[in-house]
Order: sequence, then structure tokens, then C-alpha cells
Amino acid sequence: MKAARRILSLLLLCSSPVATPAHAEDGYDLWLRYRPLAGPAKADTVAHAMVIVAPGRSSTIAVAVAELQRGFGGMTGHRLDRAAVAVSDAIILANPLQARALGFDATALGDLGSEGYWLHTTTLRGKRVVAILANTDVGLLYGSFRLLELAEQGASLSGIDLRTAPKLQLRILDHWDNLDRSVERGYAGQSIWDWWTLPDYTGPRYTDYARANASIGINGAVLNNVNAVKESLTARYIAKAAALADVFRPYGIKVYLSGRFSAPIELGGLKTADPLDPAVKAWWAAKADEIYRAIPDFGGFLVKANSEGQPGPQDYHRSHADGANVLADAVRPHGGIVMYRAFVYSEKNVTDRARQAYDDFEPLDGRFADNVIVQVKNGAIDFQPREPFHPLFGAMPKTPLMMEFQITKEYLGQATHLAYLGPLFQETLESDTLAHGPGSTVARVLEGKVDRYRLTGMAGVANIGVDRDWSGSTFNQANWFAFGRFAWDPDGDARAIADEWARMTFTPDPRFVTPTVAMMMTSREAVVDYMTPLGLAHQMATGHHYGPGPWVSDLARPEWNPVYYARADANGIGFDRTASGSDAVAQYAPRLSRQLDDPNTTPERDILWFHHLGWDRRMASGRSLWDELVMHYDRGVASVGAMQRSWDALAPYVDAERFAKTRAFLAIQRREAIWWRDANIAWFQSLNHRPLPAGSPAPAHPLAYYRAIETPFAPGH
Amino acid sequence: MKAARRILSLLLLCSSPVATPAHAEDGYDLWLRYRPLAGPAKADTVAHAMVIVAPGRSSTIAVAVAELQRGFGGMTGHRLDRAAVAVSDAIILANPLQARALGFDATALGDLGSEGYWLHTTTLRGKRVVAILANTDVGLLYGSFRLLELAEQGASLSGIDLRTAPKLQLRILDHWDNLDRSVERGYAGQSIWDWWTLPDYTGPRYTDYARANASIGINGAVLNNVNAVKESLTARYIAKAAALADVFRPYGIKVYLSGRFSAPIELGGLKTADPLDPAVKAWWAAKADEIYRAIPDFGGFLVKANSEGQPGPQDYHRSHADGANVLADAVRPHGGIVMYRAFVYSEKNVTDRARQAYDDFEPLDGRFADNVIVQVKNGAIDFQPREPFHPLFGAMPKTPLMMEFQITKEYLGQATHLAYLGPLFQETLESDTLAHGPGSTVARVLEGKVDRYRLTGMAGVANIGVDRDWSGSTFNQANWFAFGRFAWDPDGDARAIADEWARMTFTPDPRFVTPTVAMMMTSREAVVDYMTPLGLAHQMATGHHYGPGPWVSDLARPEWNPVYYARADANGIGFDRTASGSDAVAQYAPRLSRQLDDPNTTPERDILWFHHLGWDRRMASGRSLWDELVMHYDRGVASVGAMQRSWDALAPYVDAERFAKTRAFLAIQRREAIWWRDANIAWFQSLNHRPLPAGSPAPAHPLAYYRAIETPFAPGH
Repeated sequence: MKAARRILSLLLLCSSPVATPAHAEDGYDLWLRYRPLAGPAKADTVAHAMVIVAPGRSSTIAVAVAELQRGFGGMTGHRLDRAAVAVSDAIILANPLQARALGFDATALGDLGSEGYWLHTTTLRGKRVVAILANTDVGLLYGSFRLLELAEQGASLSGIDLRTAPKLQLRILDHWDNLDRSVERGYAGQSIWDWWTLPDYTGPRYTDYARANASIGINGAVLNNVNAVKESLTARYIAKAAALADVFRPYGIKVYLSGRFSAPIELGGLKTADPLDPAVKAWWAAKADEIYRAIPDFGGFLVKANSEGQPGPQDYHRSHADGANVLADAVRPHGGIVMYRAFVYSEKNVTDRARQAYDDFEPLDGRFADNVIVQVKNGAIDFQPREPFHPLFGAMPKTPLMMEFQITKEYLGQATHLAYLGPLFQETLESDTLAHGPGSTVARVLEGKVDRYRLTGMAGVANIGVDRDWSGSTFNQANWFAFGRFAWDPDGDARAIADEWARMTFTPDPRFVTPTVAMMMTSREAVVDYMTPLGLAHQMATGHHYGPGPWVSDLARPEWNPVYYARADANGIGFDRTASGSDAVAQYAPRLSRQLDDPNTTPERDILWFHHLGWDRRMASGRSLWDELVMHYDRGVASVGAMQRSWDALAPYVDAERFAKTRAFLAIQRREAIWWRDANIAWFQSLNHRPLPAGSPAPAHPLAYYRAIETPFAPGH
Repeated sequence: MKAARRILSLLLLCSSPVATPAHAEDGYDLWLRYRPLAGPAKADTVAHAMVIVAPGRSSTIAVAVAELQRGFGGMTGHRLDRAAVAVSDAIILANPLQARALGFDATALGDLGSEGYWLHTTTLRGKRVVAILANTDVGLLYGSFRLLELAEQGASLSGIDLRTAPKLQLRILDHWDNLDRSVERGYAGQSIWDWWTLPDYTGPRYTDYARANASIGINGAVLNNVNAVKESLTARYIAKAAALADVFRPYGIKVYLSGRFSAPIELGGLKTADPLDPAVKAWWAAKADEIYRAIPDFGGFLVKANSEGQPGPQDYHRSHADGANVLADAVRPHGGIVMYRAFVYSEKNVTDRARQAYDDFEPLDGRFADNVIVQVKNGAIDFQPREPFHPLFGAMPKTPLMMEFQITKEYLGQATHLAYLGPLFQETLESDTLAHGPGSTVARVLEGKVDRYRLTGMAGVANIGVDRDWSGSTFNQANWFAFGRFAWDPDGDARAIADEWARMTFTPDPRFVTPTVAMMMTSREAVVDYMTPLGLAHQMATGHHYGPGPWVSDLARPEWNPVYYARADANGIGFDRTASGSDAVAQYAPRLSRQLDDPNTTPERDILWFHHLGWDRRMASGRSLWDELVMHYDRGVASVGAMQRSWDALAPYVDAERFAKTRAFLAIQRREAIWWRDANIAWFQSLNHRPLPAGSPAPAHPLAYYRAIETPFAPGH
């Protein structure tokens, strides 16, 4: 009786058949969901994650330990206490000194640098331990996140042995965020920087942003838009940036600012912003001193100058190197750097826009200060669904170059289209510049292995906003994640990254992971197909770049018009960049240049980027160019339909909220893919008057219908 | 042994020392948190909430039952099943027919109308039941929410007996939300309407918006800004509004749209928008038909015409009544209404701005169609921290008038200042117009009890955005809540409402509730004191209305300038609205007019609104007007300091996140209160050259410092 009563009272103690509804899967937790594991994975993880031994005492160690407690707590339901020694099986975080004190051999850490880590399971004094060893605290933090990620992916912790260090020094998010909280080319709501309540209020979202970035090794954030305003450099806003830097510091993330080139005039009251003027140099030096007083580990400046109306050194007949160096001199005493963007096109230049960055920057090779790195977009135009790699890569042996990718999908369907950018990143990075013979890939250029670079890096234009799921859709989160992975290792594999992401973001169940990864891996090619196949570019509507506008021809500058890029008429289509055209091919290494100068040796995926060809030209498939083009548009639409069917079958594995949102967005994408196809076909058909190949559906409406569509409230403009 | 082993296995079964971190208190749940109750309140609630009997089958009944399950599930930890009959103690939802079938006496429902409910505990066939009885399903939904709210407040359900029906028919939120997702005068992030992904995607936030509104009896939402654009009336955007209407319908919430008066020209291709033109009438009728095809229960139009640059009937020399009636005729066949705003001021009118609405509208009394209601702001200027009630109330016996309050705090500290508006609402509503002798309060005017109105209503300009906590701060949520309560019962009590809100939003613990309600009840007067004491108005900086700008005098139109309102000079201050001035006092009922015409019988809180007085005028306190003014500024700052101390002492009762945010915002408020005080004192002192009273601190900076402050990125403009 007594025992029965005790049983009853215990039952009552733990009876709570309806708990408060669990935190819904609304996407906020990204890939760091830490939901309860089940089955063998849980048992394995529980066995390893009993106690944490972390002798370090820094704020970075504190957040690493807190993250391990949070993550393993969530996954196993057990609290991990922190202990001084491994009294039982334990997770150990140790730098070389601490590792030796604990009895480890730490010699293997020598080549892991200041951010790498070694994660391995071993035994120590009879206890089974998972050791996270690194030369620095931030290395230990990165290792902690990686351990959690492996557990989330369903990996066994028993046989872990992972040594890794980042191949690039600068792994940076560029936020094109304005001080009024709008985000240029942002499709995920307003800026997460609430400038108005900074520095007084630093809510939990800033910390969660830092956690997410640290979990994928991102170590810098440019807070404000490259189209910068003077106010970002005022004391009031420096204090706001400093408050963010304080939040980010434990996570190994440095703060950078976009610097407005004309600030010495606008804020300093000078008559000039000439970079060689002593007063201008002094103003920048004093401004840097002021910033470093507030942010001792300030990273430095990002600069967009003499491009799209921004002021710059050419206003004073100085070079971009002069412009970069005046800012570089200002931050050098403090250890800062300057990232100087090569994305320039001048209103005076009437040649091929694709040539201009190279024409402006290549002659300046070697003239930049030692703390300048030139930031180059992946392609020579502007973040198109597909572009050949930028010819500057491999062409500036004496100037460090860093990659600028666009994570936010300005030209790839913006918020709603599902387009996993991993293949785009990988395609660019594995492109061979042939700069020093075969194997001179863009990745190796960035890593400083083709030419020795003192600085290396990769920037991604962030797709982050205040939307609850950060990136506007669940699958857009994958692009943030993939950027981080490629910045850590430019030789990475898009499919493997998608696999990791899908396991953590949803479930490791292979019935979900396999079709989802397959869908992701085809998604970007689908966008290329329905928007700009065969090397076409910039066929988007004006300004907001939302939807098709291949007919647009009335904008003031020729290179603002889609017709400038497609050059379609009754006879053919494509931009002649061969020696008989703009000769942009000459900007590539000679062997590659020769290959691209001939349509027969140019990859078909890029063929209209480099060549103007007749509609009847025979393609590899045997189809005419026109029929091939139409086939691609059709294939793009069909791919989206296949993604819809694939997703619908995954309902059993996905929570209701994220399932419904992705499903609704795929429906939008399908409708808009058809719009893209039909508008383009209607337009090109109005020029070439050719019939559609058999089986291809005619556009649903006449061309005038598509030309009349207006979308004045498109986001992100 | 066996028993012990069973105990152990039970213990293991329920051992989960660290659950996934509970959903943080980030404010998203508003006052509908449904957190676990404790102690006697839990036992009492569990005893009553065992099963739900709800014979109805509508979508409204479904959401009511779901809410009861969610709410009582959260509060008690037990799932409430739905049963056909009260097999045990139960919550019963029944309309009169169902009530009789269950054995209730339903005669008492007769006077509860179509939205009221009767909530009471009784016994039925030997079972103890909580009965929610109403004439309609939406009444049952309102009663369900009220029951949950009472439980959340810690009330015992044993003796409940509450009969209530709304005193106003239209209880509406006006969203000043633009189609680009910006919100005019919004300080809580972008619009919650994601027009871009509507109608395809309707995420859970729309449902939670409807839940929150239904919980306080709000039954309408105007989706788009009164400064309307034509696109809202296109088929594309009607479909988007219809998707929202579908979400809101089960919650008893109708959708309304702001109509752009010139749409017949801009969309219809007509040459005119003259309301008496037959083609214009036909266009509006056809447009209404189109809307009702998509939204069969569309509520109707809100119209801002001939005000601040908006087009309107006066463009065609027609009256506002003509303008309202053309839209009213269009929606009448469908049961729709028109809410026509009286907030007008014309560029041609050179008289006192405070007179204009009355001058324009009072002569039109009786000329509006029977489905028009004129929407009047609480005061004659524009949502100031304090205004005397609008003289139109009580002055239009043959025209239904509805109240327009501003919930978003455009002029009361915007996002960050803590200002509970309950006292502002109450002060206006209990003001006696004396229209038909004493007791003709504004509340009774609105209720149609002073003059018989066929339509009654109250609108609130919403303070809702995508901020996680909906309203930009936790305490701003109280203003949304209070608006709902006052719209239900304009004779309500601000303190009682604050008490209810604080219990539900935080905790019923009196150690928290008592000081919090006290703080809330003083907060709005603090803002009046540090911004615009003694009847001053519109001293805010230009455009964004953020911060002080009492010196502004260079704007094109006189009534845009703060100096127009304060009229301060070396000798005195205040706006003479007496018979010897603008004679705006003549717009009030004669007895009140006489009282306000004399400074000696005008309440001091409004004295400078009606009178221009010398700086030396002796006030009731014995102080000079100047000293009294300074005392108010000082008192406002001191009140904020007291709020800070009060809040700091409440840390033990509040979760970390909401505590920290409120604390940071109070620090901002304190700094800005000092800014307001010092800037105003510096300005007025520059005119009157008078010393400060003993003990009053001098402004920290010279006047030039305050005049130089610019805030170009202030939100909500």
C-alpha cells in the first residue's frame, strides 16, 4: 500500500500530459535547433556528453560552454555540468598549455593556426573523452559548435577525428543595411540592427546572430550598406556600432564599417576629399583613432568608390589605389584593414561593362598598401544566376583579392524562389583561371596559393533581416550556411554542405535528406533555365530586378538596359566579347582566352555571354540555338514542378509551419517561372518570328501583357 | 524490491532534468500567455476545466474550443477534451437554442445582442459547469477569451457571473500600413501584412493577430494607410485582402480598406472623380461589387479626403457629404459602411487649424447617407499628449460620429517611452460636452445615447508591426489592450484595465501588479509634463515628430510650425482661442464655451490651449506661469526617474528579456525627457529672459546645441 501510494505520488509529480506548447518550428533556430535525439544517436550522445572540462576563463570559453550545455541539454535532456577535471566521461576544451596540463599530447596543434581546431574522441586517465583542442579560445568555440553540429546530424561521437583550419582569414558578411533600417536588396524584412535603440538596448537577437555566424566560422560583419552615408562615421553611430561589437566579441566576430569617401567634406568640413591631401589624410587618421577608442578590435573599412554615383578618388583624378591607401594608412596603426571593392562602372566608359573592373584595377596591381584587399564579385557583371568567373582572379599577383558573393538572391528569385547557391559558389571557386597553368582555380587564388597573398578572404552580401526565420525562407538559410562553409574551405563540396544543413535544419532521416538534397542541388540550375539560360544575363526588370524585363531599352545609360546584354534581333542573340567584339575574353589567361574566343570551345552554359550567334546555330544537342533556348526555359519550369512534387511528398518529415511556408513559396516560384519563360519567349519571338519547337507551350498572353506588368512595391529596392 | 524497482523505472520515465529551453518570454504571446498556474488558482481552474461541451459546429466555435484547449492546457497542464454532454464538470458554450437543449434557462440572453455573452458558474444535472452563453458564435468566442483571461488574472472560476455586451458596434484598428510594408507613424517594425507573399502565404502571425484582437473584442481592421494608393483597389491587392479576410473571419473580424478618392481617374480611366458624376458613381459601384465577390463580408471603406494633399470632393466643389455618399451608395447593397474622416485642414484656410474640422463638418449634419459614420480624432489638432475633446462631439445630432484614437505613440515618445494611454482615452471619453445638459459625455455621444445614432464605433490607429513583441515594447501592448477594452465599454476605467493587463502580461502577484499599475497610471502625465504641459501642443520637431522643436518657424504653412501653437514671446505664451482670439471656444456647447472663454474657469491642464497669458500670471499654486511651466518640465523628468526606480525593484517578478528591454527603454526615456525639458526651457528662456525658479536645473547645453540636433533616420515618418 505504502509503495503503491509512493508510485502514485511519483506519477502525479511527473504528470503533465499537455505541456505548454513547445516552441514552434518557425525557423528562428536555424540549424542550431538542438531538438531531442532519439534511439542510438541519443544513447551515444548521452554517453559522451556527461560533463564539460574547460580550464579557460575567457568570455569566449564561457559562451562555448554555454552553447555545449544548451545544445547537448536540448539533444539529450540532461544538464552538462562544468567540472575542473574529467571525473567521468567528458567533453574537454583545451588550448595547448591546458591540454598538456591535462595530460594530452598537444604537438599536433602546430599547424591549426589561430582559428583551427582538432576534435577527437580518445581516452584520458581511463575516462572516455571528446577532446576539443585548439591554439586559441575562438578555435575552441568553433570546435564546440562543430561537435554540436555533428551530433545534430546524427553522427556518432565515438570515432570522431576532425582536424580543420580555415583556408581564408577574412570570412565576412556584408550587410547592405541602411540607417533607416531598410536593407538594399534585402528580402527578409528590415535590418536586424535597430540603430534607433542602440546602444541602449542590445536584445537577444544580436547574440543569436553572433552564435549562428560563429557556428559556421564567420568572423566579421560589415554593419552598413556599401552605399554609405556620412552619419555612420559620427560619434553617435560609432557608439551604436561599439555596442554591437561588444556583443559579437566573445564569438570571434569583428565589426567593420562601410566608409563614405566624401566624409572628410561632409563631416570634417574640409573643402576636398582628395586622398593625397594632407588634411584629408589627417581627418581619416583622426576618425580611425576615434573609432578604435570605442571599438579596440575594429576590423576596418569596406569602400565602394566611384561606382553607381558614389564619391571616390577619381573625382580628384586619383587612382583607386590612392583612395584605398588613405583609409589603409588611417587604420594600419590599429591593425585594421581596408576592403576595397572592384565593382566599378563609370558613367563615362562606353565600352563593355564587363571589362571595366579589370580595366580599372589590373593596372594598379602592386600599388595598394599592405593592409588593403581588393574585393571582387564572382562575375564581371553583377551577381547573375550564372556568370563566368571574374577575370581579375588570377590577374593581380601582387594584390590580395577576396571574393564577394551575394547570399541575398537579388537576381535569383529574391525571397520566395528556392535556389540553393552552393552550386553557384562551387562552380565559381573551382573554375580554373589557368593563371599559373592548370589548377590555378579561383579557390586557390583566394587562398593565396596561386600568388602569395598576405591577406585572404571571402565576403557574402547577407540575406539576413528581422523576419522570424532570418532569411525570408527556410531554404534561404542554407545559403547563409553554405557561404560560411565555403568561406572556411573554398574547396568544399556543395552537396555535402546541403546534406549537413538539411540534417540539422530538419531531420537526419534519410527519407527526408536524400530527396531534399537532390532538390537543392537542381534548384539553382532551374533558376538559370527559366531566367537567363545559355549565358544570358541581366534580363530582369528595372530597378527592383523583380521579374522579367528583356525588352527594356529606354534607360539613360546603355548598360542599364537588358537589351544591352542580350543583343537580340531578327538574326541572332548574345554579346560578342571575342576579339572581334569587345575583346573582354582577352582579360583571361591566354589559353582560356583562346578557348572562350571560339564558340565551338566555349561551354554552352556561357555561350551567349561571350558570343553573338545566329538563331539557327546548331547546338551540341543537335537543336537550333532558338530551340535550345526554349528547351531551357521549359526545363526550368518543369524543374520547379518537380521540386513541388518532391516537397509535397516530404510532409511526414516536416513540421507544419515550415512545410506550409515552403509549399506556398514553391507555388509562387512555379507561377513566376512560367511568367519568366513566357515573357522571354514572347519577347524573343517578337524579334525572330520563329515557331516554337514541337511540344513547347506558347506563352499564355501576348507580349503586351507581360510588358504592362508593374510591381511598384517590390521589396529590397 | 519489486515496488522499489517500479518506482525507479517511473522516475526514469519522467526524468528530464533539462528540457528544451522553454519558449522565452519575448512578448509575442501578449496577454495570452497561458503559463502554468500555481497553488489554489491551479486547483480551482483544474476543477472547472475538465471537458468542453460545445454543440456548435462553425469555424468560430472551432477556434473558441481550440483557444480554450490551448489556454487551459497551458495553465493547468491538462488536456481538455471536447464532449457531447457534460459527463463531468465542464465548460459549456451554447447559443439560446443549444442552451435550452442542454437544459439551461436562456431567457436572460435577450439583451446581449449579437456580440455579448453571459459567463457564469452553475450546476447542470448535478455537474458543476462554467457556462458561456451568447446569442451568436462570436459572442461565445468573446466569452471564451474572457474566461481564459479571468483565469490568467488569477480569479477563481467558482463564483463567476459576468454579463456584458459591447456598447459600440464598430471596434476597429486602423493600420496606416503602406503596400511597400512601411508603416506611417509605426514604431514596431514593418507592416505585419506581407503583401508580397499574399495571397499565397498566410503565416501563423495573421492568425495570432486575429486571436489577440478577438480576445479584446476588436471586430474590424482597416488594412491600408488612410493616405491610400490606387493599387489597394486593384484585383491583385483585393485578392490579398481577401486572403486576410479568410483568416480573420472565424474571429469575427471584418476587413476594411482605405479608399483613394481619385481611383476612378487613376484606375478607371475617367476624366473626373466628381462624386456627383454618374460615371464615377458607376465606377465605385462596380468596384464595390468586385470587392464583395472576393470578400462577401467586406466591411467597407475608410476615407481621408481633402486633407494633407489627399484628393477629395472639394476638388470638384462638392461637400464632404457628397464625397462620403458616393462610396456609401456603392457598398450599401452589400451591407457595407463608410467611415469618413473629419481630420481635414485645407491649405487655403488661414484661420485657427483647431477650428477647421468643425467649420467644415458641422454644417453638413444630417446630409450624410445612412451607412456613413464620421470619424473624429479625440482632439481638434492631432493626437497630442493632451488635447481638450474635439468640439464636433455633441455637435452633430443627426450624424453618427465615431472616435479615432491613436494607439501608436506618434507624439508620446514613439517606440521607447513608457506612456500608458488608458488615462488619455478615459479623460477624453468622460469629458462632458454638455450638449444636452450635464452627463452628455463623449462616451455617451459615441454610444448614441446623447443623440440616437444608427451606427456607433471607435477606431484606433494601430501600434502593431512585425517586431517580435508586436508593439515595439511590452508596455505599448497595454495601449492596444486598453483600446480594445474602451471600444467595448467607453465608460471603462483605465486603472482597472491596467490591472487586468499587468496580471496577464506578467503575473497576478500583487507585489508586481500594484507598483506596475501605479507606474502606468502616472506615465502619460509624465509625458505631458516633459513635452507639452499646461495645454501646449505640437512642440515636436518637424516631420518625424521625434524630439523637441519648439523653435521651428520656417515651414511653408503657418500651422506646420510649433511656434504657431505656442505663440511665445517676451511677454507671454499660449494660443488665444477665446472670443477675442480665434473664437474656437464658440464651437463648444454654450455653457462650456463660456467656461473656456475665461482663463479663470479653464482647467489649468488646458489653459495655454485656450489662452495667451503673461509669463507672470499667478497660477493656482501661487507660482507664476513661467515658474509653473518649469515645474511641470522638472516634474516630468522626475516622474521618469521614479518609474526607473520602480521598475528596477520589480526584477524578481519579471523574466530577464522583458525586464532588460523595459529597463533600457526607461533609460532612453529619461535621457530624452531631460532633452525635452532642457530644449524647451532653453528656447522659452531665450524669449522671456527670465531666471529659473530656485532649485530647477539649468539646461545642460546652450539653445544652439538643441537646435542643431538632427535625427534623419527617425522611424515611422
